[in-house]
This record gives sequence, structure tokens and C-alpha cells, in this order.
Amino acid sequence: MNVIADQCVVPVGVGVSVSEYVAACERVLVEAGLSHQLHAYGTNIEGEWDEVFAAVKRCHEVVHSMGAPRISSTLRFGTRTDRDQSMADKVESVERRLDREA
Amino acid sequence: MNVIADQCVVPVGVGVSVSEYVAACERVLVEAGLSHQLHAYGTNIEGEWDEVFAAVKRCHEVVHSMGAPRISSTLRFGTRTDRDQSMADKVESVERRLDREA
Amino acid sequence: MNVIADQCVVPVGVGVSVSEYVAACERVLVEAGLSHQLHAYGTNIEGEWDEVFAAVKRCHEVVHSMGAPRISSTLRFGTRTDRDQSMADKVESVERRLDREA
Amino acid sequence: MNVIADQCVVPVGVGVSVSEYVAACERVLVEAGLSHQLHAYGTNIEGEWDEVFAAVKRCHEVVHSMGAPRISSTLRFGTRTDRDQSMADKVESVERRLDREA
Repeated sequence: MNVIADQCVVPVGVGVSVSEYVAACERVLVEAGLSHQLHAYGTNIEGEWDEVFAAVKRCHEVVHSMGAPRISSTLRFGTRTDRDQSMADKVESVERRLDREA
Repeated sequence: MNVIADQCVVPVGVGVSVSEYVAACERVLVEAGLSHQLHAYGTNIEGEWDEVFAAVKRCHEVVHSMGAPRISSTLRFGTRTDRDQSMADKVESVERRLDREA
Repeated sequence: MNVIADQCVVPVGVGVSVSEYVAACERVLVEAGLSHQLHAYGTNIEGEWDEVFAAVKRCHEVVHSMGAPRISSTLRFGTRTDRDQSMADKVESVERRLDREA
Repeated sequence: MNVIADQCVVPVGVGVSVSEYVAACERVLVEAGLSHQLHAYGTNIEGEWDEVFAAVKRCHEVVHSMGAPRISSTLRFGTRTDRDQSMADKVESVERRLDREA
């Protein structure tokens, strides 16, 4: 089962700057070999369910190991059985509609 | 690693009524033996990380098997290393503060 | 337009204990006269769109005024035009299905 | 109060293809003159609180007017009082850390 997810990890109890923890999660995704794309409020991740969720778990382990005593994450995740769809497909299907009107 | 999660499963492409799919997810949690509590916009789940996320995956599998071609879920999930905290503890720590003022 | 929402406010930069900030948000909802229900990972809120979102804004203002330099919130929110549905209706429609099987 | 938000609108009861509704929300953001960036599981939005949330409301109104009887949205939104930060700043602060290691 393929999944497209959008992860946002918020370390709590380590001050206001969280970029080093987000960067550590990006490295987890690179090491996992998963397609991913950072944006201003999370990271899109695409892949086989078990690989994506293993990476999500690894993010929590790594952020705790960096000293964060508490983490509050949110994840959107979508699966579909009617057809294959990549992260790029999702963006393109919206942009194609917008272009048609322009 | 213990996790407290809050799951909201939205089946897409099966009409406006989604209660039968939410009920199926509740049964998945019962069968998994996980502590859980339904509310008006999701379900709190508590347990060992791997057990909680196995149940989340099972929910997607079951909802697809019921005929939903597409599912868009959201999950909040929190872990902490500083101390143990249950779902009941979280609610009580807020209610204790509110009671103090009353 | 009526909305059922589920709010989770995470103050960042004030340490690991967040219950006093969540309690302050509960007071905002009481003062606004909005139906609401605290759970282990957020608070269900029900009401007229503008009133619900005014309360959400007030929560951010109050939590900042208590000293939190940064807040990361998540909100699920649903509207429907096909029929009226309360928070209690949503829970009951799932529980009715579960009871039928028991 | 400035806010950086990440919106994901899921129309329910209109079939599996949702791109026309997401495109309609993009047009709402363009018309509102708000900085925004579409990604594979939502749209980043940046601006003054009242303007951002007026656009979020307008999205629900427009998607209902297109025929969707039910909408389930999720929003992440962050505010901070310690300093100004744009969507671009957030991404750059993570990328700078990743570059340093490369």
C-alpha cells in the first residue's frame, strides 16, 4: 500500500527554534531513500506504507535523542486503491486546472 | 516508546455518511486491545508505538476493503521521554487547573 | 454556516508542561459561550463559524499574553450543507452502529 | 498578528477527484492577495490573521457552492511574538543547516 503523507514535527521543551530538529528529520528521510519535499509547515513524503511510517518513527527517536523531552507531531496521510498517484501528480492536477483558465 | 495519538479517518468517494467506516475503525482498535476514546472529530488512542501504528494501518486496509477508493486521514501523535503520561492524565491536568479557579 | 472543529494548541518555548495554556483556552471557550468538549489531544468546539474562529484567535492572543513566544496549532473543521449535525450526533451515529453489532 | 498556515480542504460526497475544488481554493487565495504555495498535501498561506482566516472561510463557501455537501478541512497555523518570520525564512533556516553538513 503506497501512501502520500505530510509530516510536521514540533519538539516541545527545547526553546523556540526548531529548525535543527526539522533538519534532522530531513536527514532521516534522505537516509531512508524516500521521496520527500520540505515546505514551510511540514514535509511531503511518498512511499510504501511501512517505509514511510518507519521513517516517521525514526524522526521521533532522533529528535528525542537530540534532547527534546516531548514531541507533538501531526501527519496527514492518504491512500487510494483506484489508481496510482504521486506527489507530483497531485500538484500537477491542480495546476493544470489553474492554467486552463489563465 | 509509548504514544498518545488522535486519529481522524475521512473516506473519500463513498458519499457523505462516514459513520460506518469510523465504526469499523473503532472495531479495529477494540480487536487490537488498545485504549481508545471516540470523540466528535476523531479517536484518541494510547499504547506502544508499533501497536498503535499497526492499528492505524489496519484501519486504512479495512476502510478500503469496505469499498472506499480513497482515504485522507490525519493523526496527531505525541511522545515524551521525561515522564509517563496517559490520556486520562492529560485531561486531568487541565481539569485540575480549571477546578482550582472555580 | 455552522462548524464543528477540533482544536489543539501547542505553545512552544515555555517548557514541557502545557496544561495551564490549554486551561486558558478552555476558559476562552466558556466565556465565548461555545459548546466544547476537552479530550486527550484537543478540544471539540461547535458553533457559528465566526464565533468559533473568533475564539480560536482569542486562544492565540491569550496564550501569547501568558508568555508563550510561539504557538503551533492544528484545527480540523467540518461544515455541511446537506443537514444539521451536532457533535453529539456525530458520536451517536458511530455508537449506534457499534451497539447494533454487540 | 501575522500567521503562517497550512490548509488542506477535503470535499466529501463528490467522488474521488478533488482537484477542481483545490484549484478553486487557490483562486480564492489569489483573489485575496495572500502569499501562498501549493504542495502535494495542502497549501501554505501567510498573512495577517483576519485576512488568512477570511480566505479559509471563503474556501468553504466556494467549495460548498460548487456542490460539495460536506467538507472536512485541516489547518496547521503558527504565530510568534519573538520575531517576524516568513514562509521562506522557515524553509531557509532548515536548508541552511542541511547545506552546512553537505
